[in-house]
Order: sequence, then C-alpha cells, then structure tokens
Amino acid sequence: MSNIDTKINDRRTTGIQKHGRAAKVVSDVLRSTCEELNDVGFSALRVEDVAERAGVNKTTIYRRWPTKNELVVEAIRNSYVTEHEFPDTGVLRDDLVQYLRIMIKRTKNPVARGAMLTLNNCTDPALKPIAEELLGRARGYRTSIVQRGIERGELPAHTDAELVSDMFSAPILRRLMSLGETVKPAYIDSVVDIVLAGAKAVPPPKAKK
Amino acid sequence: MSNIDTKINDRRTTGIQKHGRAAKVVSDVLRSTCEELNDVGFSALRVEDVAERAGVNKTTIYRRWPTKNELVVEAIRNSYVTEHEFPDTGVLRDDLVQYLRIMIKRTKNPVARGAMLTLNNCTDPALKPIAEELLGRARGYRTSIVQRGIERGELPAHTDAELVSDMFSAPILRRLMSLGETVKPAYIDSVVDIVLAGAKAVPPPKAKK
Repeated sequence: MSNIDTKINDRRTTGIQKHGRAAKVVSDVLRSTCEELNDVGFSALRVEDVAERAGVNKTTIYRRWPTKNELVVEAIRNSYVTEHEFPDTGVLRDDLVQYLRIMIKRTKNPVARGAMLTLNNCTDPALKPIAEELLGRARGYRTSIVQRGIERGELPAHTDAELVSDMFSAPILRRLMSLGETVKPAYIDSVVDIVLAGAKAVPPPKAKK
Repeated sequence: MSNIDTKINDRRTTGIQKHGRAAKVVSDVLRSTCEELNDVGFSALRVEDVAERAGVNKTTIYRRWPTKNELVVEAIRNSYVTEHEFPDTGVLRDDLVQYLRIMIKRTKNPVARGAMLTLNNCTDPALKPIAEELLGRARGYRTSIVQRGIERGELPAHTDAELVSDMFSAPILRRLMSLGETVKPAYIDSVVDIVLAGAKAVPPPKAKK
C-alpha cells in the first residue's frame, strides 16, 4: 500500500470515527433524557442531570439543543421513531391484543416509558404540540387497524373505527399512564372481547331511537 | 338589656364574625389553589400566586399550610367532597350516562378541573397517595353503579363490574384529562351502548376457550 493510500484510509477512518462518536453522543443524550423523564418528569428535569447520566459535558448538550424544551421534544420524537412496528395479522382481535401487548412491553422500557408518560400526562404548554402530534398519530394507527377489520367484514360497515379505537385502548393506557398500574394479559383479552362483541351488537346509528 | 348582656352579645357576634372570616379565608385559599392548578399545574404552582389570587397574605397561608404540598392536598381533597352526588336512577344505562355527564360538567368548572387534572396527570411522588386514594374512590363509585345493574339483572351475573366500570369511563376520562379534548353527548351514548352490549354478549369466563 502506497503512502497516499494510507493517508486516505487514515482520513476516512478518522471521519467515520468522528461521525460515529457524534452519533453516539446524540443517541446517549436522547436516551438519557427519556430516562430522566421517566425518573423525575418534565418539570423537574435538569439538563445537568441528563449530561451526567449520558457522561457528556453540559455545554455539549446546549450546543445542539439550546433549550431544555428542544432537548425533550427531540428525545421524545426519537423514542417514537420505532413505533411503526404495528401488528397486521389479518385478524382484528389478534391485531388489537398484539397492539396492547406492545404498549405494555414499551412501558417496561425506561426510555419508551419516559417519553410515553410525559406525553400522556402533559400539562406543560411547551409540550402540547408534540403531545398532540404523537398521540394523534398513535390514535391514527389504532383507527387504521380497526378500519382494516371493518373492511374485512369483521365488524359492521357502520362501525365508528375511531370510537372502537379509543375504547379498546383507553382502559389500558389509562391504567398504565395515568394510574401507574400494571395490566395483565387477561385484562387485555377481556377489554378486547367486550369491545368487539359490543361493536358487533349495536345497531346502525339510524336505527337508534 | 343589661350591660352584661350587651357584652355577651358583642362577644358572640365577634366570635361569629371571626369564625365567618376565617372560614371564608380557608375557602378562598383552597378555591384559588385549585384555580392555580388549573392554570399552571402542580409543578409551577407558587404559594405567592395563590395568596394574590385569594387576596390574602402569604403568611396567612403558611400559618395553616406549612408546605405547598399540604396546601394542594387539602385543596384537592376539599374539591372532591361534593363528589358523592352520584346518579342512582334504577336504570344502569341512565346511571352511566349521567355519571359521565357529571364528569364533563365538572371539567367546565375551573376549581374541579384543577383538582381533576392534577390527580389524573400526577407524576409527582408527593401527590401519589392522594391521587391513589381519590381516583381509587372514584373507581369504587363507578363499580358500585355497575354492580347495582348486575344485581338488578341488567347485566349477566358473571360480569366483572370493575372492568365494565373502567371501560365506560376510560375513553371519556382520557379525552378530558390526558388529551385535553372535549366530549360530546353522542360520544358518551355510543361508548355506553357498546360497553353494555358487549358485556351482555360475552360468555362467562369458564365457557371461553
């Protein structure tokens, strides 16, 4: 190998390492932010504590995220990127049960849980836009799962997909997010069974008194 | 009237006025605390702002409630005292719909709403005990409404009253408390109809696969 080749390789390697280090810092900081959210909540979160947890200097954080709000918003958004892995088994009941199992699993991961708790208990105006965006997107996913079931004929054509979407998820999300309770698989099964049986049984809106 | 009688009357009147003034200060401070909770939330709440809103001196508040936590806990508890006016119409569907209408009405009152929002979005360990107590009590009320319906034969004897209680209330409470959305009467009707139809349709646990 010529001297020039070596130099180029050196430069490339340094470039990759630099890039790799920067990416690692970003991912460490964002993960640590969510973990802090899980431990102390948004109001009490301090950028100093995030820096310490991530093992970086406070100024490193402020250079990229000038305010605590910007840091938290990116950390939450980043933790929601993986959210697209949603069930599509071809059977509505299985999709709903799997969706709820994924929710429970996510609450056992401190990073996902920090982001979810913050969005679902959001009283701070600074976080309202991101909460509305991401919770609205989640509702959209759930509604599309139900919609697919309606299109397959598993629920009557007159079913309100968004209503059913709220109904199968709210009892579980409320227990996990607002009440800090655990949810057992049998609870999920019972909720889904009652919602689906109810949606099948209710008459179309026009037939109502 | 003798001189002695006059003195006694004076003392009594002063006593009553004093008591009346003290009671008014307490009720003004507790009401103002809930209004502040509604406006800024628990973390950002400052005793100075409560004092200003109530038109009293900060030291007046600290004399009775040495810490912000004690003040907030009493204010929330006080706002939940009126909670006992729950429907008992003799018809399960009417009870459920009325219960949910009362919830919606309460969220339109800033005092009740401040207390409810704080309890339902509680991430602060200092408020966990009061949140668990009062939200647990509310769930108990809802469950007893459903239980009465089961005893009247409006739902099958094998119905899980607490599960049905969660299911008819969670979609509405989640919209009002976690998502800051409004809830229309038609939404309440649809939720209650699906839950009741579902609870009637699902087989007893033993008959399940």
